[in-house]
Amino acid sequence: METAKLLLHCPDRPGILAEVTDFITVNKGNIIYLDQYVDHVENIFFMRLEWELERFLIPKEKIEDYFATLYAQKYDMEFKLYFSDVKPRMAIFVSKMSHCLFDLLARYTAGEWNVEIPLIISNHPDLQHVAERFGIPFYLFPVTRENKLEQELVEMRLLQEHGVDFIVLARYMQVISEQMIDAYPNRIINIHHSFLPAFVGAKPYHAAFERGVKIIGATSHYVTTELDAGPIIEQDVVRITHKDTVQELVNKGKDLEKIVLSRAVQKHIEHKILAYKNKTVIFN
Amino acid sequence: METAKLLLHCPDRPGILAEVTDFITVNKGNIIYLDQYVDHVENIFFMRLEWELERFLIPKEKIEDYFATLYAQKYDMEFKLYFSDVKPRMAIFVSKMSHCLFDLLARYTAGEWNVEIPLIISNHPDLQHVAERFGIPFYLFPVTRENKLEQELVEMRLLQEHGVDFIVLARYMQVISEQMIDAYPNRIINIHHSFLPAFVGAKPYHAAFERGVKIIGATSHYVTTELDAGPIIEQDVVRITHKDTVQELVNKGKDLEKIVLSRAVQKHIEHKILAYKNKTVIFN
Amino acid sequence: METAKLLLHCPDRPGILAEVTDFITVNKGNIIYLDQYVDHVENIFFMRLEWELERFLIPKEKIEDYFATLYAQKYDMEFKLYFSDVKPRMAIFVSKMSHCLFDLLARYTAGEWNVEIPLIISNHPDLQHVAERFGIPFYLFPVTRENKLEQELVEMRLLQEHGVDFIVLARYMQVISEQMIDAYPNRIINIHHSFLPAFVGAKPYHAAFERGVKIIGATSHYVTTELDAGPIIEQDVVRITHKDTVQELVNKGKDLEKIVLSRAVQKHIEHKILAYKNKTVIFN
Amino acid sequence: METAKLLLHCPDRPGILAEVTDFITVNKGNIIYLDQYVDHVENIFFMRLEWELERFLIPKEKIEDYFATLYAQKYDMEFKLYFSDVKPRMAIFVSKMSHCLFDLLARYTAGEWNVEIPLIISNHPDLQHVAERFGIPFYLFPVTRENKLEQELVEMRLLQEHGVDFIVLARYMQVISEQMIDAYPNRIINIHHSFLPAFVGAKPYHAAFERGVKIIGATSHYVTTELDAGPIIEQDVVRITHKDTVQELVNKGKDLEKIVLSRAVQKHIEHKILAYKNKTVIFN
Repeated sequence: METAKLLLHCPDRPGILAEVTDFITVNKGNIIYLDQYVDHVENIFFMRLEWELERFLIPKEKIEDYFATLYAQKYDMEFKLYFSDVKPRMAIFVSKMSHCLFDLLARYTAGEWNVEIPLIISNHPDLQHVAERFGIPFYLFPVTRENKLEQELVEMRLLQEHGVDFIVLARYMQVISEQMIDAYPNRIINIHHSFLPAFVGAKPYHAAFERGVKIIGATSHYVTTELDAGPIIEQDVVRITHKDTVQELVNKGKDLEKIVLSRAVQKHIEHKILAYKNKTVIFN
Repeated sequence: METAKLLLHCPDRPGILAEVTDFITVNKGNIIYLDQYVDHVENIFFMRLEWELERFLIPKEKIEDYFATLYAQKYDMEFKLYFSDVKPRMAIFVSKMSHCLFDLLARYTAGEWNVEIPLIISNHPDLQHVAERFGIPFYLFPVTRENKLEQELVEMRLLQEHGVDFIVLARYMQVISEQMIDAYPNRIINIHHSFLPAFVGAKPYHAAFERGVKIIGATSHYVTTELDAGPIIEQDVVRITHKDTVQELVNKGKDLEKIVLSRAVQKHIEHKILAYKNKTVIFN
Repeated sequence: METAKLLLHCPDRPGILAEVTDFITVNKGNIIYLDQYVDHVENIFFMRLEWELERFLIPKEKIEDYFATLYAQKYDMEFKLYFSDVKPRMAIFVSKMSHCLFDLLARYTAGEWNVEIPLIISNHPDLQHVAERFGIPFYLFPVTRENKLEQELVEMRLLQEHGVDFIVLARYMQVISEQMIDAYPNRIINIHHSFLPAFVGAKPYHAAFERGVKIIGATSHYVTTELDAGPIIEQDVVRITHKDTVQELVNKGKDLEKIVLSRAVQKHIEHKILAYKNKTVIFN
Repeated sequence: METAKLLLHCPDRPGILAEVTDFITVNKGNIIYLDQYVDHVENIFFMRLEWELERFLIPKEKIEDYFATLYAQKYDMEFKLYFSDVKPRMAIFVSKMSHCLFDLLARYTAGEWNVEIPLIISNHPDLQHVAERFGIPFYLFPVTRENKLEQELVEMRLLQEHGVDFIVLARYMQVISEQMIDAYPNRIINIHHSFLPAFVGAKPYHAAFERGVKIIGATSHYVTTELDAGPIIEQDVVRITHKDTVQELVNKGKDLEKIVLSRAVQKHIEHKILAYKNKTVIFN
């Protein structure tokens, strides 16, 4: 059954919720999901709504226009509208480590996600065999300090040709530069192998080992221009002991990274994330 | 600021949400919390709503009547209304183990909860000193197979005299009989020292040790006439190893029991639990 | 660097630990790992020892004989000896669900484990494509009530031809019969999609949903003739809410099953599990 | 049954383990606990040993001397010896928040721990009533920037008079100065209300809220002169969402702080912690 999904936020005022849900039900839309949240500190109203289109009186292609005219202006809203029959298109960037890539592709191949993966981009050839196992085009763009901006421009053209909606950095060991971040605002998902904000930057497992922590973590977040400082989508942790070497932290961490990245990708695909002021509202 | 809390459920139909929220906002109530959920299998709509009463046009004592007339009949609703200035009154039943009792009383004394604890009832004298440390009346009712129903009747009269709204069994090692359960439907909270439905009944830590599980748990639930089978409110677990003796399971379990019971009690006090068909909807 | 691993258990008596470690060090073996545990209830001594063979004075092929003669008889020990240059050989049994299989093969392909996977056996053709992606022979043995024992005999011959040491049931939806269990005692690892001993048998997620639990789990264990009752190797859990449908439990459970099965397989490969009296000692 | 506990570490060399365990068994000591660990990076051998004294041939008061002469010199060991009939004496420092104090005293009163608590020290009068409920002397030392060092000197004299072995800072909102830290090296346990090293210093819950993390934590550690940077003993975490206000983080954090502090205190009392190079080895 085809559905529409609406995500919005605006200054909180009495009556928004009633008015918006009324708009759907009056027009014969069957609401199958609704979640809302008010940030009483910032006084912002957030909402996610999903309804079946079958008997909805407003034609699909006019919903956006109607909603903008009737409500978005009145309430000073920002909103996004998605339809369930449009599959988001996701590019994966990798370097040398395969665990996150395998996990993403296994889910994709098993049909767990409503997504298309038209291509994989890498700065190293190591994982070409993985792409081939799953029949996904693999593009190699070796990156040096000198050619970085240039290579990114080629990558961005390629992404555009493939109609890519969002990018997943599956342990891509390169900092993305501002031009690409600006082109995909809150649409580049990174996995950082620490419990942010602890251990920002390179070699977090070594740093965790040095500090003698008893728990390590992983964090998925949207990429912003400040390193490892974008809106956090998901985090998880695993217990370690003094017996664990750095290598064992790396190994335990891999399992965390996979799951924490995949949970974030899934929520993004399902349009359940609303990024606002360097934080995320996660609808469930 | 005084608030009203409304919990309701009814067969799901379009427009309920809009109509109920509209009722509040049209009458100048400021909604500060709203959570709703639709069980699409059973087709039931659940909702929890909280609003400030300050400028609410309907007098506090008439809200229940108005709401019943205007909406509850129309939508075949069951609902409950609570006011923030009415403190629920809670009785604690204990036997010999003090850890849950201490935890409950520490929170009470620190003012963490909006609750009154007018009395503690026990079938053993062991914890009288704890009640005294916190200045709470302690009543001893030794229970034998012969005097059980009789003792319970005295207890129930005492509970009524103290205006008790709900009962917390803080490791009370006695099965409550049907007469008392019927008098407090979904208002007796028990802590069972296992991850239900595993290890129902007596000595769950011994059973867990025998079975060689790698994780133990605790479960808080409303008491029904079937032993350890009532609606589950909260569960949590802790990892164990082959090195843990039964005694160490008991010790690790104590910390679980405390936290799992206290979380359930807190949610009950905050009117965030809606029990339905032997399950609970937990609003957050 | 080649190492030997020794796992043993015997009635506890003073001096065993000193004598065994002394045996290694006197013969110039460099102990790189030692873990021991005494079950004071059963009075059993358990030990796992790993040492470098480079300068070890006793020839590799004679260690077992020497150790049996010098210590095992004296202390009434059962012991097993493994060498790091011998890769265990593992067969995977699957049915229709791919998530565990993908996870196992991704780790195998990435070189995470010291193991060989010579074949995959299935009672359904659905996952043949996965085996092919990873270049592993796939054998199809459709099983009916009538042909089960016969098919198993063919499978067992095939396992023997491939020198298989242990079997992993990666969501293989068939009960293994006694003849095969007897041929691989504590060498068949199953993943059960519940927190055992809760929800034994078929459809545990449906049962969990019905019961209204707040946490679901997965359990990996060695297969014994009693269904879902063998020695537990590893368990883990994930929190759910009343909002989760059965399908969402299935999805959340998949991630649990993968990780809980893989942890068990890894420990088995590393010879860190000692099964004893329907429990496991897990060395770390 | 009286036991002795031995904790030691030294440069790793072959034969230490055999020699030390042999020393106990040859002298008729019944070893009831042994755990050892080798840090292969630093090449350090760590060991914890517990044995029954009943038939031990060496008189209790001479064990330390014998062990020092026979082994500690030879292996360049540092070691500590404890006897089960000597209860460690613990002082608690508090300020205004009661949750950790209640938790410690409830365990103490219930007899969970082999410890004496001769006094509670505070810089505020707020928790005097708690000390009184449990019948423990309460000393008030208001601290200002001017009188801090002076007040600490008085406190240290008091601690000495009470034979205090170690100090627990149960949300004591004052930085301890160097003179006191030097007097109790690795014997002052603090609870910090964040997942260190994230959010060092004041107001970590506010910082966590600002950063939009999805998990918060608490950390217990030994106090060193660098703020919140001492050897970590225990950490734990709890999941939060965008819906949690700062106040809700504070509330959820309280339960974490209690459990994380109590676990650390328990391990310290049981002599299961060996601090080394700003990390801890935790025997279990």
